Amino acid sequence: MPFSTDATPPGVDIAAIEDAARRLAGEAVETPLLESELLNRRVGGRLLVKAEPLQRTGSFKFRGAYTKISRLDLAVRARGVIAFSSGNHAQGVAAAAAAFGIPATIVMPADAPAIKRRNTEALGATVVPYDRWREDREAIGAELVERTGASLVRPYDDPDVIAGQGTVGLEIAARCATLGLRPDAVLVCCGGGGLTAGVATALADRLPGVPVHAVEPEGGDDTARSLAAGERLANPPGGPRLCDALLSPMPGEVTFPINRRLGVTGLVVSEAEVIDAMRAAFEHLKLVLEPGGAVSLAAALSGRVLTQGRTVVAVASGGNVDPATYARCLSAD
Amino acid sequence: MPFSTDATPPGVDIAAIEDAARRLAGEAVETPLLESELLNRRVGGRLLVKAEPLQRTGSFKFRGAYTKISRLDLAVRARGVIAFSSGNHAQGVAAAAAAFGIPATIVMPADAPAIKRRNTEALGATVVPYDRWREDREAIGAELVERTGASLVRPYDDPDVIAGQGTVGLEIAARCATLGLRPDAVLVCCGGGGLTAGVATALADRLPGVPVHAVEPEGGDDTARSLAAGERLANPPGGPRLCDALLSPMPGEVTFPINRRLGVTGLVVSEAEVIDAMRAAFEHLKLVLEPGGAVSLAAALSGRVLTQGRTVVAVASGGNVDPATYARCLSAD
Repeated sequence: MPFSTDATPPGVDIAAIEDAARRLAGEAVETPLLESELLNRRVGGRLLVKAEPLQRTGSFKFRGAYTKISRLDLAVRARGVIAFSSGNHAQGVAAAAAAFGIPATIVMPADAPAIKRRNTEALGATVVPYDRWREDREAIGAELVERTGASLVRPYDDPDVIAGQGTVGLEIAARCATLGLRPDAVLVCCGGGGLTAGVATALADRLPGVPVHAVEPEGGDDTARSLAAGERLANPPGGPRLCDALLSPMPGEVTFPINRRLGVTGLVVSEAEVIDAMRAAFEHLKLVLEPGGAVSLAAALSGRVLTQGRTVVAVASGGNVDPATYARCLSAD
Repeated sequence: MPFSTDATPPGVDIAAIEDAARRLAGEAVETPLLESELLNRRVGGRLLVKAEPLQRTGSFKFRGAYTKISRLDLAVRARGVIAFSSGNHAQGVAAAAAAFGIPATIVMPADAPAIKRRNTEALGATVVPYDRWREDREAIGAELVERTGASLVRPYDDPDVIAGQGTVGLEIAARCATLGLRPDAVLVCCGGGGLTAGVATALADRLPGVPVHAVEPEGGDDTARSLAAGERLANPPGGPRLCDALLSPMPGEVTFPINRRLGVTGLVVSEAEVIDAMRAAFEHLKLVLEPGGAVSLAAALSGRVLTQGRTVVAVASGGNVDPATYARCLSAD
C-alpha cells in the first residue's frame, strides 16, 4: 500500500486555501461567473455558472496540481511528478509541471478520451497507458516512483490539492460579494470529492451557512450514499460511463471527512439530465461542458434543488470532451 | 429611401465610445481575453481571443443596441424600436429593449437559424419574418415605423451603434495594459463593419499604430475589396452561406469611411479555415463560436497574419449557432 494515508486524515483550513490563492495568482485563470437571462427565466431564479472550462487546461484541476507542486521541496520537486488520471487531472499536472520546468509522467487508462491523451502529451508530459480493468495502476505508479524518485500528485486525496481546488470557492465568494448577493446554494461536480471539499471549506469561511451540494451522476453516486450513511461506500464496478471525469472507486480518505463535517449533501442526476445541461450551456452560455463537468448545472436545471426565486451557483468543472461525443450529445433525442 | 443617411456620414470619436462604456457598465459583460498554451504553441506566438460569445445574448451586438436605445429621447424611446436582422443584432436589440422596458419588433429573414428566432422571441421581442430573396425589408420596416412610431436600430450604420461596439476595443486595450503587452495586430470579424469601425476607433486612441484587420469569409469580402479599391463595392448575390451572421450587401455608408480613414485592411478566410477555427475554439478554449464569429480566429490560425513571435488579438464576435450546424462543423472531414 505505497500510497495509503495515515489513519487520521489531515484537514484543510482556510489559511491553506488563501495561501494557494496567492501561489496561483497570475498562473491560474480567475474564471468568470456566467449568467443567462433565458436560463434564469427557465429556473425562475438566478443561476450563476462558475466556468472552470475556461481554466488553464480546460478544467479546475490545474489549481490543485499547481498548488501541490509549488509546495514540494525544491530538491524533491526537481525529480518530477507522476499522476494517475483519466484525463483532466493529467492535463492539470502536465501544465503545472511544465510551469515549474519539471518532468511529468501520467499513468492513464488506455480508454481515456483521445483529446485528453493528446493534450496531455502536447503539454510535455509522458503518458503511460494501462488497462484499467486488468492492470493495477497503484503498482505501476509505485514502480515509477521507486525508479525515478518522482512525487505522486493525487487527484483529490491530498490537502494541498484540496486547498488549490478551494480557490474556486474563494473566487465564487468574492464575485458574489461584488455582485452584492448571497447564494442560496452552491452545486459542485463530484468525483473523488476534492473540488467539493475545497469549495465547502472556502465557503464555510466566506459564506457560512450556504448549503454546498456534491452532485454526481447515476452509477457514480458514492459520495451521496456515503454522506447519507455516514461512512465511505464504494461505487459498483463499471461506474458512470458518460461522465468519465467523475469516475472514482469511493469517496476519498481525506475528502470524505471534510465533506461530512461541513454538512455537504449529495444530489444525483441522470445521463439525460446531463445531456440537457450540456445543451443548455451550449445554447445559452456558449460554454463547452464535458458530461462530468455538467452535472452541477444538470442538478439546477432539473429541479434537484429549489431555484424558484433563489440564487444558485453551479460550478461547471471542465470542458474536455471529444468532438464526436459532444456532437452526439447535441444531437441526441 | 426612408432610412438613407446624409451625404456626409457622421463620424465616431473616442469620447462617444467612452460614453458608451459608461452607459454599458453593469449592463454588458466585460468579456475575458481567453488564451491557450496549446494554441499559442500552434501559432508560435501569443493569441488572445476576446470572447464576445460570453456577452449578453451571445454576441457583441448587445453593446451597440443598448447604447443606441440609451441615447433615444425618453418620449421617442417609449414608442419602442424595430430592427432588421439575421439574428445576432435581433437578440441584442431584444435584450436591450427589454432592459429599458420598451417593445421591440424584429424583421427577420424567414430562413434565419432557428435558435436565433427562438431566443429573440424568448427575450420578449415580436418577430416579423420576411423572405429575403423576394420581399423588401426596408419597405416592411418603413411601414412599421410609420404605423407605430418606433425607432429603427440599425445593425451597423449608426454612430451610436458603432460607439457601443467600440467598447470592445476599450476593453481589449485595458486588458492588454493590465497584462503589460502591446498587440502586434487586432483581428475583427466583419459584416457591415460596425464592430470593426468601433474597435479601430478605440484602438487608434488607446493603442495608436496597432494594425486592425477586418476579417471576412470568401463570398462576403466586400469590405476587403472596398478598402483595397478605396470605394464601396457590393458583394455578389448569395453571400457567405456558412457565415450567415456576416451577411451584408456592401460596407456601410457610416462604417466604411471610418475603416478607410483609420487604415483598416481586409483579410479573407475560407469555409474550411472557419470550421478549423470553430474546432480549435471548442478544443482549446471551450468556447462555442458560430461560423461568422470564428473568421478572426481563422485568420490567425491559417497564417493570414504573421503570428510567429507576435501577440495577436482575435475578436470572436458571437456564438449563436444551431446545434445541428455546430455538430456538423465538429464532425466535418
